[in-house]
Amino acid sequence: QPADKDARGRQLAGACAVCHGPRGIGAAPDAPHLAGQPEGYLQRQLRAFRGGERRHEIMSVIAKPLSDADIDALAAFYAAQAIELRDR
Amino acid sequence: QPADKDARGRQLAGACAVCHGPRGIGAAPDAPHLAGQPEGYLQRQLRAFRGGERRHEIMSVIAKPLSDADIDALAAFYAAQAIELRDR
Repeated sequence: QPADKDARGRQLAGACAVCHGPRGIGAAPDAPHLAGQPEGYLQRQLRAFRGGERRHEIMSVIAKPLSDADIDALAAFYAAQAIELRDR
Repeated sequence: QPADKDARGRQLAGACAVCHGPRGIGAAPDAPHLAGQPEGYLQRQLRAFRGGERRHEIMSVIAKPLSDADIDALAAFYAAQAIELRDR
């Protein structure tokens, strides 16, 4: 794993892109957009999936092996993908 | 409650704006953005909070009294708030 948090987040997010899109704008019909979500929110959800407080057939499996550092790197990556309302 | 689904969603979303913003771009630091999220995802999360499969100190209380029609109207309202990545 790259030591640098940004690189680590980008690398880990590669596995998530199939459902969540390369930058967190979802590709799969029912997968939530992660782009621009608050970092703390994303960390809590990944920890909840890892710990079982929140369950999903795919996310519960994917989150299991993640370390705290992995979770923080992923949360930082997606939080940094700024979004805006299209028709402000 | 207005019979018309759009009006109903807009009206119900008024109570959510304090945390999630008037159109689902979050106002509270750790509240997720709901704008542009897939309608099915939003419905499932509100039902999960209402039914207890997913728990949150605020959302579990707020979702409790919602009917299926309320949930569908809210999900439709937020899903319709289109978003895009800021720096495409």
